[in-house]
Amino acid sequence: MEIRPCRETNIVQAYFHTPLPNGLLTMDKQIKLGLFGFGCVGQGLYDVLNHSQVLEASVEKICVKDRSKKRKIDSSYFTFDKADILSRDNLDVVVELIDDADEAFKIVSEAMRNGVNVVTANKKMLAENFETLYALQKEHNVALLYEGSAGGSIPIIRNLEEYYDNELLDHVEGILNGSSNYITTLMEFDKMSYADALQAAQDKGFAESDPWLDVGGFDSKFKICLLTIHAFGVILKPDQILNLGINNVTFDDIQFAKQRNKRIKLVAKASKIGDTVQVYVLPRFVDQGTALYNINYEYNAVEVEGAYSDRQTLAGKGAGSYPTGSAVLSDISALTYDYKYAYKKLDKSRSNGRPKLKLDKDFELKLYIRFNNREDLKKLDITSIEEEYRSANLNYVVANVKFNSLFNVYNDRANELFVCVMPD
Amino acid sequence: MEIRPCRETNIVQAYFHTPLPNGLLTMDKQIKLGLFGFGCVGQGLYDVLNHSQVLEASVEKICVKDRSKKRKIDSSYFTFDKADILSRDNLDVVVELIDDADEAFKIVSEAMRNGVNVVTANKKMLAENFETLYALQKEHNVALLYEGSAGGSIPIIRNLEEYYDNELLDHVEGILNGSSNYITTLMEFDKMSYADALQAAQDKGFAESDPWLDVGGFDSKFKICLLTIHAFGVILKPDQILNLGINNVTFDDIQFAKQRNKRIKLVAKASKIGDTVQVYVLPRFVDQGTALYNINYEYNAVEVEGAYSDRQTLAGKGAGSYPTGSAVLSDISALTYDYKYAYKKLDKSRSNGRPKLKLDKDFELKLYIRFNNREDLKKLDITSIEEEYRSANLNYVVANVKFNSLFNVYNDRANELFVCVMPD
Repeated sequence: MEIRPCRETNIVQAYFHTPLPNGLLTMDKQIKLGLFGFGCVGQGLYDVLNHSQVLEASVEKICVKDRSKKRKIDSSYFTFDKADILSRDNLDVVVELIDDADEAFKIVSEAMRNGVNVVTANKKMLAENFETLYALQKEHNVALLYEGSAGGSIPIIRNLEEYYDNELLDHVEGILNGSSNYITTLMEFDKMSYADALQAAQDKGFAESDPWLDVGGFDSKFKICLLTIHAFGVILKPDQILNLGINNVTFDDIQFAKQRNKRIKLVAKASKIGDTVQVYVLPRFVDQGTALYNINYEYNAVEVEGAYSDRQTLAGKGAGSYPTGSAVLSDISALTYDYKYAYKKLDKSRSNGRPKLKLDKDFELKLYIRFNNREDLKKLDITSIEEEYRSANLNYVVANVKFNSLFNVYNDRANELFVCVMPD
Repeated sequence: MEIRPCRETNIVQAYFHTPLPNGLLTMDKQIKLGLFGFGCVGQGLYDVLNHSQVLEASVEKICVKDRSKKRKIDSSYFTFDKADILSRDNLDVVVELIDDADEAFKIVSEAMRNGVNVVTANKKMLAENFETLYALQKEHNVALLYEGSAGGSIPIIRNLEEYYDNELLDHVEGILNGSSNYITTLMEFDKMSYADALQAAQDKGFAESDPWLDVGGFDSKFKICLLTIHAFGVILKPDQILNLGINNVTFDDIQFAKQRNKRIKLVAKASKIGDTVQVYVLPRFVDQGTALYNINYEYNAVEVEGAYSDRQTLAGKGAGSYPTGSAVLSDISALTYDYKYAYKKLDKSRSNGRPKLKLDKDFELKLYIRFNNREDLKKLDITSIEEEYRSANLNYVVANVKFNSLFNVYNDRANELFVCVMPD
């Protein structure tokens, strides 16, 4: 089990410099929590919980990995043995906030098998193991809630689950990775190079030390994978979903966008077309005047478009200790009234009466493709080129490309093409 | 009982020109509805319900007022006697979608006394009778849901109730009246006069034939009144809340804003400051780059700021047949799992342990005040003038004003002052 170093140490520590209020640990114990992980989100949750005016909850034990790390609350709350939490019989909920997806899956599934409700924010673990986790919820009649796993503080999962449950949704899309958005924002606003902007994001604590999960679009993919389940009732494996990131973006691309009153945003999209869904993560030129254009820095936004409710946008801070902590808290709070995701669309899509939506990879996208070597274009199945620009410093085409061929450069760190969707 | 003429006749009629699907009235009857009103929202609900893939519901009877009106579904569904619905013993929910607030209150309270759950979108009725309706919910253990009453398609009430229930909220504010926003948008974008923009809004069906409720800020007030209950646990009478609208706005004011990279928006705001709340509806100059700046035409948006989740924005279409219809449907759907508003903050604020938040009217606002007659300024308690501009055509001050004195021009159709909040 790995505890990720806190990304927002300053905030959290500044907070702990004031005397800790006693509220949490002395108030009436209504909900008993076992907490795994006391990194950024775990500490954020602890603070938010401590200041809740409505929810009465107590943290019984916190399981952490690093014995040597100095922590800000009494050591009696900590354990290094996961059985100390998983074998307790008086717990109402296990809250899993560690980084290691495999270890997290073991913890979460064991808790569920023991009949304990679980709250987690681990999108990778959820996306990779969803079928199993879905079955465990049914089999053991327990709740598994994960609002903090997508969109940070934006309450998107529960809204998709409840509020839009009877809506004929057309699409769900958005900016789901704060690091990538922070980088492209700095490149435009502060004229930074990609390398400098990435460094700034890392200095701010927004990006991982190996930022490939963020800038390569994997983090966004795990999130859209979860949103696809709640929006359309379709469970996809992460490997089925294409993601290309902003890792190859340059100042030239940013300029190309700016000259056309657009901005480059890494957008995850899931849309329903007839009996199919199209799901992918790709950079996109978004137009001035659209909602996503104005979502900058580490902010996230999700757009939901339904046949009747029209287009709606939910925006907020996408990451960080407190935003995610408060999303986790809202899940804990929901457990007080026995809330579970109903998965109505998923259940319906599996019943005999209704065809399950199929993943469609057989369509075309109009893409801006900037290249260093024209040979690289051969990796993609280009059906027509609409524009081509060549110069000593900049070479690109605007072309119609068969979507499926984008998998040829998928998860390829050596790929030099920068691919960006042209809006219709 | 009054049926309001449909504002979006074209859409609804175009819809009905296609043969009506039989789905609704023949599917398994799980939820039995009695519907009051078959105007815009009622018809919108009917359509949305008919196309729901998940919810199985049947409309048992529809009570309408006008016997002569030709309707698009079979006349056997209609009744003109409210007892036909209120005295039925097999109903799961009464859906109230009429315009007349007094009549609506009678219907809703009678249904609740009969132990029937109610869904309504009538903000005026709710705001004016909230104490009684709250007591009826407790006394008869029934649900009263009203997501469609504020923000149209934006799921703000349930989010405040559930998702932010443990948040230390600082403020909730937003653009809650589509008509007013449509008018100021046309004045800026299309350089229309107020009169022409109002006419355009009426032609579009966004404004009432007597638009005072919209442009005078009353509609926004009823809505912020409801949001204040769910955000802060405080019930206020509508008359306690100050509202001034955009009814006096001129092209000069729009220009004043534009020159400063701002826009004029009618904003309803509720904020918590210590043990008090400040609640009002006033035009405001919103800055470029802020979320509300980009909410134009008939769109609404709500901003929620919490101590931990930071600032979040929810935006979408604020009015209309289908957006409101789908909000109403989401309430009906929530009843399938016995959802009720928990009113945790309200209950807490009334318990002995916690002081109830008081309405604060004793503060100052920095306002732009444009006047025709300087004498009119004497109606307000101005503590200092920061700017004054005088010319043949335009006269204004930027001044600090005691908030309470704004009630001197409240609900005064003859008032000629245009008052607009200057941002900090």
